[in-house]
Amino acid sequence: MKCLKCGKEYRQIVPPRCSCGAFLEVSYDYSRVDIGKWKNRERGVWRYKELLPDVAKIISLKEGGTPLVKAKIGEELGINVFIKDETRNPTGSFRDRLATVGVSYGLPYADNGFIVASDGNAAASLAAYAARANKEAFVVVPKKVDKGKLIQMIAFGAKIIRYGESVDECIEYARELSRLNGLYDITPENNIIGLEGQKTLAFELWEEINPTHVIVPTGSGSNIYSIYKGFRELLEIGVVEEIPKLIAVQTENCSPIVAEILGIEGKREFTKALGLYVKDPVNKELAIRAVRESGGTAVAVSEDELDFGERALAKEGVFAEYSSAVVIPALVKLHENGYFEKGDRVALVVTGSGLKSYYVEERERFSIGGTKLEILKLLREKPMYGYEIWENLEKPMKYQAVYQHIKELEALGLIEEAYKRGRRVYYKLTEKGERLLENFED
Amino acid sequence: MKCLKCGKEYRQIVPPRCSCGAFLEVSYDYSRVDIGKWKNRERGVWRYKELLPDVAKIISLKEGGTPLVKAKIGEELGINVFIKDETRNPTGSFRDRLATVGVSYGLPYADNGFIVASDGNAAASLAAYAARANKEAFVVVPKKVDKGKLIQMIAFGAKIIRYGESVDECIEYARELSRLNGLYDITPENNIIGLEGQKTLAFELWEEINPTHVIVPTGSGSNIYSIYKGFRELLEIGVVEEIPKLIAVQTENCSPIVAEILGIEGKREFTKALGLYVKDPVNKELAIRAVRESGGTAVAVSEDELDFGERALAKEGVFAEYSSAVVIPALVKLHENGYFEKGDRVALVVTGSGLKSYYVEERERFSIGGTKLEILKLLREKPMYGYEIWENLEKPMKYQAVYQHIKELEALGLIEEAYKRGRRVYYKLTEKGERLLENFED
Repeated sequence: MKCLKCGKEYRQIVPPRCSCGAFLEVSYDYSRVDIGKWKNRERGVWRYKELLPDVAKIISLKEGGTPLVKAKIGEELGINVFIKDETRNPTGSFRDRLATVGVSYGLPYADNGFIVASDGNAAASLAAYAARANKEAFVVVPKKVDKGKLIQMIAFGAKIIRYGESVDECIEYARELSRLNGLYDITPENNIIGLEGQKTLAFELWEEINPTHVIVPTGSGSNIYSIYKGFRELLEIGVVEEIPKLIAVQTENCSPIVAEILGIEGKREFTKALGLYVKDPVNKELAIRAVRESGGTAVAVSEDELDFGERALAKEGVFAEYSSAVVIPALVKLHENGYFEKGDRVALVVTGSGLKSYYVEERERFSIGGTKLEILKLLREKPMYGYEIWENLEKPMKYQAVYQHIKELEALGLIEEAYKRGRRVYYKLTEKGERLLENFED
Repeated sequence: MKCLKCGKEYRQIVPPRCSCGAFLEVSYDYSRVDIGKWKNRERGVWRYKELLPDVAKIISLKEGGTPLVKAKIGEELGINVFIKDETRNPTGSFRDRLATVGVSYGLPYADNGFIVASDGNAAASLAAYAARANKEAFVVVPKKVDKGKLIQMIAFGAKIIRYGESVDECIEYARELSRLNGLYDITPENNIIGLEGQKTLAFELWEEINPTHVIVPTGSGSNIYSIYKGFRELLEIGVVEEIPKLIAVQTENCSPIVAEILGIEGKREFTKALGLYVKDPVNKELAIRAVRESGGTAVAVSEDELDFGERALAKEGVFAEYSSAVVIPALVKLHENGYFEKGDRVALVVTGSGLKSYYVEERERFSIGGTKLEILKLLREKPMYGYEIWENLEKPMKYQAVYQHIKELEALGLIEEAYKRGRRVYYKLTEKGERLLENFED
């Protein structure tokens, strides 16, 4: 690794900045890269090995090469939109691209094990790859971590150290623990090597659709910077003429990068998109450079819009974590502002699986167990008509919604017309409805 | 679809058996299949379209084409073992292969929506594919369902009907609801069409390693039968000379298929491998045929062995649900009985993701929060030596394990030597240890 400013070279455990203060970057001899070789290789991160660090042994779970799915929402908006489904990586997030390179590269220096500071996904990834490499993994995570990610770390046998409020505090602590105990640190803020893995997402997008825009959920800033670096390398090799416009998305609650790009006041408060809860992102300058040099922009979305984003992605058939769901409201906002032109090819980077961040209690209210069950119970007492059912429900809701539930219960064969009085239709339980109810109650 | 016995043809909503009583199977004109075309197509279920039902529109989330990962455990055992990682499908299980074919085929008949009876994975899959197809999904699931799967159904907006103790009871209910309400039923026990999707796993395994053995977690029996059908088609086309030996695995608690194959007494009790909790599998005969005609065998594993299996897979870097983890103890048992020969290529089918079936409470005891925290608390009171720490721990455990924890805490820089008395090393908290402890407690 070489400092792009002063030329100083670094090996092994690599700091993110040169001692001269400038950012470090891994560079290659781009004139010698023959990308014609790529298409004969298996899909995945290591397909692009000419542009990855040399390693003696590859620790891989066949990460990368994730599917690109055409988004229905694009048809509604009149532009071409594609979902880059990073939930399909081995541990369900884009961080597996980081871990395969970080662990493979660090293996000779990791006799005592690996360490990472993370809000969850990178920790789950390291846990898996270290297990695969027969090495110990230490992970430093903040007190609030998505449960699915925590479960993965535990399942993969990582030593979990919970430290601090947000990931910002974990980063320095991991660096100290790494120094004191000879652990190889793959935290992207402490070691740029893993970003070489992350950048392969750009190569894949280029091979797939050569996008005009890429919308990227942005927490620490390492992901958007990695993608930028990947496209810039394609530019240096001469296979693209332009870097796609990169769009950084954060939540209104925590938007240090977006605020600086847009020149607005940003907050640094808690967001339920835990992966984007980074108050003082070390890679902020890199992320801003990625946006500016690509001619892109930035968007902040509200906490409520996270739910909208998640539902909209679910309609596409993709279950994403809140931190990824930001891409949808960002897309819609930009579209409403006339940002896109016909013919644009917009890639949405969906970074992590919804299975990692679910809140069971919060979601169960959507299940059939709720209002529908209550309606069935009411009708067991006596036949009622729609308005009467609505009046008797414990939970206040719109009549229209209750009517919809009644129609669905009827379609399911669980209730049926008992009799009519004037224009009022009285409903009663069918035999099946009764059986269902009994079944719920024992 | 045609009955293989009496020749009667069926269309649209297809029963699993012909009115003559024999099993139905979808068949093709194998003499006209040119498998040379496959290798130029994208990986995934629809790569094999000559051997799939004709559909007007494909509803796909790019399922199948899952990675095959070399298993380290094979090196220990001296045989070639590979993990077919079906957790890498869109919703994290092999059932996405079923849903893509079931939903694409059923689309013209599903104006009122789709339905499936399922212990969880097929329901989560249908929910995703129906959402993608802009159709309603009704899912009938038993009262005990893995939480992650339930969350997926909810996220994808399915109407959830919880019914009965195990999936056996759901199947008939789904059939009734389908008939009454004009819902297209993709339950494999009610409609064989989806098995055409599942069989593509066999085609992939053949392209990848042409295995000698395939070890398959077996609940309803549809999966092992699908794999069998896939290989038998390759035999009919003439590209393989022999079907690999198929090995059905169930749990000792619920083993109707395995018991019949081995001619032993089987139980039909609850198992924490919920996907294998099928008491009276409709596809039992098909599963038994798959095992017998392939020359394979069957294995039952205990509930404790599920934990062993899950841990062993985690060491490979794969986090699987209990229902999938059965493949590891099955492999080990067969190996110990001298079942395999050098040079055998054994594929383990890992059907679903561990993120779908975790029990948070059960797992959290493995976290650092446990013994290590207790040791830190003890040392905050006064310096102690190893044996003294061991005596003061609330939880009874082996001294060797406590010693290991002490060494790890020392390696983490959380405790250090305070002083020595004779050969006894007294430990105390470091500043970092104190900070960590404070952090845990507020």
